[in-house]
Amino acid sequence: MRLSQSFIKTLRDAPKDETARSAGYLIRAGYIYKEMAGIYDYLPLGLKVIENIKGIIREELNKIGGQEILMSSLQNPELWKKTDRWDDTKVDIWFKTELSAGGELGLAPTHEEPITNMLKTYVKSYKDLPLAVYQFQTKFRNELRAKSGILRTREFLMKDLYSFHTSEEDLDRFYHEAEGAYAKIYERLGLGDDTFETFASGGVFSKYSHEYQTIIPVGEDTVYYNKDKSVVLNEEVLLDEVLDDLKVKREDLESTRAAEVGNIFKLKFKYSEPLGLKISDENNAVQNVYMGCYGIGVSRVMGVIAEKFCDDKGLVWPENIAPFKYYLAPIGEAANKLADELYAGNEETILLDDRDLRPGEKFTDAELMGIPYRIVISDKTLAENSVEIATRKTGESKLISLDEFKKMLAV
Amino acid sequence: MRLSQSFIKTLRDAPKDETARSAGYLIRAGYIYKEMAGIYDYLPLGLKVIENIKGIIREELNKIGGQEILMSSLQNPELWKKTDRWDDTKVDIWFKTELSAGGELGLAPTHEEPITNMLKTYVKSYKDLPLAVYQFQTKFRNELRAKSGILRTREFLMKDLYSFHTSEEDLDRFYHEAEGAYAKIYERLGLGDDTFETFASGGVFSKYSHEYQTIIPVGEDTVYYNKDKSVVLNEEVLLDEVLDDLKVKREDLESTRAAEVGNIFKLKFKYSEPLGLKISDENNAVQNVYMGCYGIGVSRVMGVIAEKFCDDKGLVWPENIAPFKYYLAPIGEAANKLADELYAGNEETILLDDRDLRPGEKFTDAELMGIPYRIVISDKTLAENSVEIATRKTGESKLISLDEFKKMLAV
Repeated sequence: MRLSQSFIKTLRDAPKDETARSAGYLIRAGYIYKEMAGIYDYLPLGLKVIENIKGIIREELNKIGGQEILMSSLQNPELWKKTDRWDDTKVDIWFKTELSAGGELGLAPTHEEPITNMLKTYVKSYKDLPLAVYQFQTKFRNELRAKSGILRTREFLMKDLYSFHTSEEDLDRFYHEAEGAYAKIYERLGLGDDTFETFASGGVFSKYSHEYQTIIPVGEDTVYYNKDKSVVLNEEVLLDEVLDDLKVKREDLESTRAAEVGNIFKLKFKYSEPLGLKISDENNAVQNVYMGCYGIGVSRVMGVIAEKFCDDKGLVWPENIAPFKYYLAPIGEAANKLADELYAGNEETILLDDRDLRPGEKFTDAELMGIPYRIVISDKTLAENSVEIATRKTGESKLISLDEFKKMLAV
Repeated sequence: MRLSQSFIKTLRDAPKDETARSAGYLIRAGYIYKEMAGIYDYLPLGLKVIENIKGIIREELNKIGGQEILMSSLQNPELWKKTDRWDDTKVDIWFKTELSAGGELGLAPTHEEPITNMLKTYVKSYKDLPLAVYQFQTKFRNELRAKSGILRTREFLMKDLYSFHTSEEDLDRFYHEAEGAYAKIYERLGLGDDTFETFASGGVFSKYSHEYQTIIPVGEDTVYYNKDKSVVLNEEVLLDEVLDDLKVKREDLESTRAAEVGNIFKLKFKYSEPLGLKISDENNAVQNVYMGCYGIGVSRVMGVIAEKFCDDKGLVWPENIAPFKYYLAPIGEAANKLADELYAGNEETILLDDRDLRPGEKFTDAELMGIPYRIVISDKTLAENSVEIATRKTGESKLISLDEFKKMLAV
């Protein structure tokens, strides 16, 4: 993309009410725009980051048999009454609205009820299972307080996967596969070293659920872990009984702040039973369907990555998340001409700073935006038939030959 | 995708309240699921069709300099009060909701107000223009009546593009480019021959706007056209004054039903003025920004294509819209084995019907789903080292050599 013609503008200041450092950077660098508290737009750079994150998640979920769909935001109260999740005193984050034709509707904060109900049309027999269905979908939560930029918002992009099984064994099998997929996803997102499968409260039908917590100071949660982090548990389950189960001692645990970047639940019959999702088994007997659900907050993950990888100059995106791989800053007329040639055909990987600005201003923007490699072409580098490549992460820069850079572009 | 393991199930019956033939087919063939009147989910096949349509639109809009973003659904009433579009007596299709922290919010039926307001942060000078920004975004409209499947819904996917200019000449230039892009889009969507740029009422700031109307019996609109369809106008502007302007006589016009698949408006200062989007010009004088907006209802376009291309057996997708290119139906053990080999590496183009069903049932489903080419492998075709290829559109089938089919797959 050519910066001169683009809707990518850096700002001097971020809104004063943004407390998370990354939120300020994301706004200043032109990734997101704040509509209201907890409500954001994704600008060209931000949308590219979101799509990169979605791409990684999609690949790993497809590998374990996930099938992508897209469900509606508008919700029929009747489904949610069956599970007692419509009442505002039970679930306090609903946005509700009214049909002009009469009747109440809700804006989905999650989709267990509608997916379970929908499957009644398609799943009749044990032969129709197992099934794993997921979506990238905009969720709405009427949070009393929204904070930390895109870490906790009222409208956000979520990946929600639901699995359906004939037996507890098969649910366990898939749950384990999902754990594997999640590990790969966080690894590829650059969060692998700091993200831990964490014991959390399980609700009615299982003792524990698993959250994925990324250790990060701006996180909203507190987690406890032992020395080698082989056991990590949410503060909410720091109870003697739980510690006994997990065979760890309270005095061996350290605490830290963390952000929840995903969760997985064995739901068993929690939704299939009240909503009546049943199948006939091999002996033609009717049985309930076993269910699991598996979430990743896509926009929150973007915020966590931004927060994890930033320094005092701005964002530092991992290469596979970055909106562009190269920030190309030509200086001088001959350099401009060469930059145009290099840019042609590489519009997806090069952000070309062809603006009429001083080099220092361009460099500052490149650092703020966190593009992995800054390439400078000037009379000086041209004299040596080379370009200067600076790595955002390390700050190191060196000259490489023009041919070598062309080879990098061709990869 | 393997049908045996997929969440793609054909149904015998469609909901009785679906009047459009295509809506019944889309539901029965497993493309969409009806949550409530005017509210649909997109199942794996349907989501693929949506993504194919989006891909075509995205390519053409990027060619004219469009930059993709994603704005929020939740809307701040203050912006819409400035243009007098918040009041339910003025705009009667709002879904409104309330923040638990206090205050009203709306669900966006369109985005002129927020995009105009947002640009005040980024656009300050004539140097920042022109700009063309678009999104694929879920819109909400509180329609009193929803009908004809996904042709008129309460929640739908829309592509909305907004352009911003320093002068009327530049707006005209871009508007003309957008007309060119739209012509290409409808052509590539397979609707080119039946879709016409149509004069419609222009509102306050210009005499006419342009709608794109696809001639189709289930369409909600009535349009009038002369013999060669060089002039097409919406019923709402069938006035002597307009006919004079367009130099056509009423008696030379024929009428037909049509569905609006897009619209383009020269908005000029309609939103920039009340919302205060101004720039400094070359002489440092402050001026309003000229605006245009350009919509395409993505989910409606899917419905129109489905309706346009169907017969008494089911859907007949154009090749570049179809969720899969080939429906591969092996019959017998040796055929199954070969089908598995052909399928490997072609999961994106082949829908493999590996279900344990009679050939006739598979063929019926293939026709209902409207996959462009049905490939049958059987002992009979294997004896000739060939496969049978049936073209859904023409119904013609013939034997082609296995090698030839492999070459087709490699394309």
